Amino acid sequence: MDTTEILKQLAIIVLAAKFFGLVARKIKAPMVVGEIIAGLIIGPSLLGIVQSSDFLQGMAEIGVIMLMFSAGLNTDIKQLKETGIKSTVIACAGVFVPLIFGTVLYMCFYGFCAPGSEHFLKALFIGTILTATSVSITVQTLKEMGKLSDAIGTTIMSAAIIDDVIGIVVLTVVIGFRDPDAKIWDVVFRTALFFVFSLGVGIVVYHIFKRIDKRYPHTRRIPIMGMALAFILSYLASEYFHVADITGAYIAGVILSSLDDSDYISRKMDVNSYMLFGPVFFCSIGLQTNIRSVNSGILLFSVAFVAVGLISKVIGCSGVSLCMGYRMNDSLKIGLGMMTRGEVALIVAQRGLAAGLLEHTYFTSVILLIIASSIITPVLLKLVYSKDKALPEG
Amino acid sequence: MDTTEILKQLAIIVLAAKFFGLVARKIKAPMVVGEIIAGLIIGPSLLGIVQSSDFLQGMAEIGVIMLMFSAGLNTDIKQLKETGIKSTVIACAGVFVPLIFGTVLYMCFYGFCAPGSEHFLKALFIGTILTATSVSITVQTLKEMGKLSDAIGTTIMSAAIIDDVIGIVVLTVVIGFRDPDAKIWDVVFRTALFFVFSLGVGIVVYHIFKRIDKRYPHTRRIPIMGMALAFILSYLASEYFHVADITGAYIAGVILSSLDDSDYISRKMDVNSYMLFGPVFFCSIGLQTNIRSVNSGILLFSVAFVAVGLISKVIGCSGVSLCMGYRMNDSLKIGLGMMTRGEVALIVAQRGLAAGLLEHTYFTSVILLIIASSIITPVLLKLVYSKDKALPEG
Repeated sequence: MDTTEILKQLAIIVLAAKFFGLVARKIKAPMVVGEIIAGLIIGPSLLGIVQSSDFLQGMAEIGVIMLMFSAGLNTDIKQLKETGIKSTVIACAGVFVPLIFGTVLYMCFYGFCAPGSEHFLKALFIGTILTATSVSITVQTLKEMGKLSDAIGTTIMSAAIIDDVIGIVVLTVVIGFRDPDAKIWDVVFRTALFFVFSLGVGIVVYHIFKRIDKRYPHTRRIPIMGMALAFILSYLASEYFHVADITGAYIAGVILSSLDDSDYISRKMDVNSYMLFGPVFFCSIGLQTNIRSVNSGILLFSVAFVAVGLISKVIGCSGVSLCMGYRMNDSLKIGLGMMTRGEVALIVAQRGLAAGLLEHTYFTSVILLIIASSIITPVLLKLVYSKDKALPEG
Repeated sequence: MDTTEILKQLAIIVLAAKFFGLVARKIKAPMVVGEIIAGLIIGPSLLGIVQSSDFLQGMAEIGVIMLMFSAGLNTDIKQLKETGIKSTVIACAGVFVPLIFGTVLYMCFYGFCAPGSEHFLKALFIGTILTATSVSITVQTLKEMGKLSDAIGTTIMSAAIIDDVIGIVVLTVVIGFRDPDAKIWDVVFRTALFFVFSLGVGIVVYHIFKRIDKRYPHTRRIPIMGMALAFILSYLASEYFHVADITGAYIAGVILSSLDDSDYISRKMDVNSYMLFGPVFFCSIGLQTNIRSVNSGILLFSVAFVAVGLISKVIGCSGVSLCMGYRMNDSLKIGLGMMTRGEVALIVAQRGLAAGLLEHTYFTSVILLIIASSIITPVLLKLVYSKDKALPEG
């Protein structure tokens, strides 16, 4: 792509995102919703003045890495320890309930059959797509409300990270059924290894940063090196451990979250995020879809897919939260927070396509699920949090 | 390119740039020199672990736009008015002295001939490449020293802008000799039109920004809209007026330079610049060359080309400055500041290649000129400025 064309597209994206973001805020919806809708409006669905490109995809990737790194930086490790077991239980429910619901949904539409058949595997894959939570929208929404680092925010964040890990294991297992060469335990081992590796790297890196931070507090090198760490861990996660790259970025943030200057790093990352990378990331979700190309057949399935995708996460996560003693309102927050789908669902779908377990038609459904969850989640989250204020604490 | 690959490359670039930037500062050289050398070291010339790509080129483009926008924001319009005529004279000398020297250089190497012949045009084109000043390195160096907005800094900036305009007119004239269809006066007209257009847009935009600034001071929308303005003017300059895009970015900065919040915009742009886009831009200069592929024949010409390129600018600009009554030291600053070549020289070379006026071999010479000027200029500038301190003022 021509470099001057890039400038035009970025200017349109940034201005549209800012404008619709402000409109969204005026009507009490979170700004991200406005930014995604901005992408739909300027993209092929409506005006068609901006097309998704490799360059914009790359910028969006950097955007999501920065967002997850920033989320990690804001993690309260003490609270993560406290919510660890509960988060794991929530994550398990958040993976297996949508997996089952999705599988049944496909069979309701296209016929039931016995496990092990080609048809069953395809049904199972629809369920697999539904497992992957992408909390970036939730993160942004909670951040706007200043609720990212409280107990519920941390629970959602940790559950989403664990959900991601379990989801990748499930994906590997399902694709493993197709290809007898794939070693399932090998992948489980690699995933575990990544966390052990991160722990080791984390201890060393944390002490290096602490020393630099003490000697040169508030210098540019600290956020720059922090960002580089996020990039490196994301790369290593994806390239060598086959874990989602955003998990690496989040862990990089967690490693640095106890530094004195973690707030300073976070502020510098935020400037980068809100000026350019954030708007590009959220707009690109809208840009990647073309509402016009949807026909009635796929539309019907998509509507059911979206509904089942959203509801099953809430049933799974909120249900199990309630069972563990969370208040009704807090359980709802957790379920809604875990409901968002994003780029991970698309990556899962792409792997399914490559393995012959998914037809290209279903991509529209996945994109609609991402958009719907991205729009609905922040609105409902804000609603539930606003009820919180009305109620007395405790 | 794979998105995870992007993360790896960015991490390497950012860390290498920061490391060599700090090393450069330790030995009292400007950080940009370190960043360019970092590009040479990690690029194909030495380690070969990072290759230039479309994505990195796009990021570098955004980097240079941000840098020029920031330079424009720091312009003191009062001083620009005062230095206007002097700057124009300096720019003219800075264009025509290198043009003549470059033409003669080519003929010294490959034989003299009468004007109008094919051979003469090729010689003239070597001179044309030498006309284009790219002040981004100078801007960064002066910024590091806090000298960007003083009288000399402003003179250099305005002379470089005018130099750019004259340089583009010269390029069009030279290429116009080759192609009888190109209308030279049409281009002169378009360039003039761009400045008239910018003036009109500038007045309107300035008042809009002033109103927003008054109503919502220090809000994110101001730097975001400012950046978008820089992108738009750069795009319009390049696409519709055939003026270098960086001229548009600089003018966008000048338009907003009188706002109360111009410092606020500048600070936010700087965070974006130093975290990611700046290192990518300066490293990419080093990445784009492969020192290994240079043979002795082209090396000899290149050395002469680099020497003539650097000396002719200094002779032209410093000479004419001295004649206009600048002190010796200040004249040297102006000559050295105007000496840097950058992406504009490469763009000119590419147009020559397309018009059949330049062979691909000479690209190495152009890249070497860019690198040499990028490394030598900041070192010499610092030296000249340090002498300034030793001398009493006036």
